Amino acid sequence: MLFLGIDIGGTKTIIAIADEGGTILAQQSLCTPRDQGPSAVLSAVKEAAHRLVTDHCSPITSVGIGCGGPLDPRRGIILTVPNLPGWEDLPLADYCSKAFNAPAYLDNDVNLAALAEARKGAGTGIDHLAYFNIGTGIGGGIVIGGKLYRGCGNAGEFGHQVIIPDGPPCLCGRHGCLESLASGTSIARRAKESGLDLTAGEVAQAAREGNPIARRIMDQTAGYLGLGVTNVVNILNPRMVILGGGVMKAADLLLDGIRRTVDERAMTQLACDVQIVPGALGDQAGITGAVLLAIEESVSH
Amino acid sequence: MLFLGIDIGGTKTIIAIADEGGTILAQQSLCTPRDQGPSAVLSAVKEAAHRLVTDHCSPITSVGIGCGGPLDPRRGIILTVPNLPGWEDLPLADYCSKAFNAPAYLDNDVNLAALAEARKGAGTGIDHLAYFNIGTGIGGGIVIGGKLYRGCGNAGEFGHQVIIPDGPPCLCGRHGCLESLASGTSIARRAKESGLDLTAGEVAQAAREGNPIARRIMDQTAGYLGLGVTNVVNILNPRMVILGGGVMKAADLLLDGIRRTVDERAMTQLACDVQIVPGALGDQAGITGAVLLAIEESVSH
Repeated sequence: MLFLGIDIGGTKTIIAIADEGGTILAQQSLCTPRDQGPSAVLSAVKEAAHRLVTDHCSPITSVGIGCGGPLDPRRGIILTVPNLPGWEDLPLADYCSKAFNAPAYLDNDVNLAALAEARKGAGTGIDHLAYFNIGTGIGGGIVIGGKLYRGCGNAGEFGHQVIIPDGPPCLCGRHGCLESLASGTSIARRAKESGLDLTAGEVAQAAREGNPIARRIMDQTAGYLGLGVTNVVNILNPRMVILGGGVMKAADLLLDGIRRTVDERAMTQLACDVQIVPGALGDQAGITGAVLLAIEESVSH
Repeated sequence: MLFLGIDIGGTKTIIAIADEGGTILAQQSLCTPRDQGPSAVLSAVKEAAHRLVTDHCSPITSVGIGCGGPLDPRRGIILTVPNLPGWEDLPLADYCSKAFNAPAYLDNDVNLAALAEARKGAGTGIDHLAYFNIGTGIGGGIVIGGKLYRGCGNAGEFGHQVIIPDGPPCLCGRHGCLESLASGTSIARRAKESGLDLTAGEVAQAAREGNPIARRIMDQTAGYLGLGVTNVVNILNPRMVILGGGVMKAADLLLDGIRRTVDERAMTQLACDVQIVPGALGDQAGITGAVLLAIEESVSH
């Protein structure tokens, strides 16, 4: 049996085929031609996927698709994606189901990364956990009793909890959200305000090399992330919080500060209950989750 | 079959017997003799309960106990209760099991109020919901798939999410928690700081009568509660948020402001998904939850 995973991002899309154990047999990345609209992206995905599948001469059992949200996982429809213009109300699961002649399932890309970390990453064997994806934006995923918890479909918007009610503007149109204070975008913005014209990754490197402004920005980021983790710990009392996403490549600079803030700010018993760890799957979390979605939904249907 | 519920509070303890449908047949309140330590409280509970049971000449099938936390529901042990000195590490379920010669189960009193609202109150028929208890302090409970979600045992500490990182001191020893900004204690404190020496209930009444300072304090309270509900909505994406506890007797002054804040601050889709409603069970929520715990745990064991 062969399962197809598709992880659609604003800049990069990954396509992979996997066996029934979720082991990825082959994968390919392509630049998302997002300015050409959904049909161009989907054609490129279809072409690349057919090439991968042809090499393995076995039909696809099912397809798992990860994409930004909000979306309706039950009906397989994208509602809106801030970084993919023209994708509003797109029946993406239906489209893929027809393209690959197999059932197709859609979920939020960060939920799928959470699922992957729970099954094959840092959270293996942990019954209930929360996953933060800290990159350009900040997303989250919740696994309870070993299964994704979706609420009404879009649970886990950890990046849009309010941390400072009168804080800076957020891309969501509100202000003071965790994302506006601690995302990669926010790190670069705060660096610029302090006279450093660097990306988030460059700020981290400058901090490692002893630049005091960069160091202060990274410490501040850890403090904000610590408050966001504190709230999730106090609300969910999880056994583990996993921190993934591009910004966590600076785990060496952030993790101690995050843990210290949670120890200071979360309820004592709940802070004791939780392990706070970096993700184990790195950039592979999203696509691994997409193939796991394909496998697990196909079993449950 | 007869089930016994015990709801132990810092000032008042309620004892009730119920049939297998959770209908309360008789109940009694007593002042919690908390200064005399746990054994005095438990003797008083035992005596009152035996009197109730004798009138119904049927043995008790099981006992459900609600109490403040943190506690260990699995082992039936109180860990610490801020307003009940001397109750640390108390094996309360064991004690009650021996006293009534029946299995006994312990859970957080606010969790049990959440369960009661989900089964017999405002949340009847709702699959996943969050419950805020806004009284002297602020607690919370989460119901997912129709069952209490406990995390590692103490999920739902909604009152200790950080709302203003450098906010006022909280009874938990930290600062800027929702409880420090919007509990009954906080309403009275802010009133006093503004020259009104009133209880929270009196502040609400003064606001209704047109006192502008009292009105401002209640509006501010609604805003803080709205931020707390926003974070829970963004994290859990529940179908319903139920607001109970003594402070919600001022729902007429608070509910609009809370809903407005959530509409402004929560992610649009998630704000649309959620109904925000007052609790339907009032002061009966805790004891109703205690008898439901007795019934449901006895079925599942």
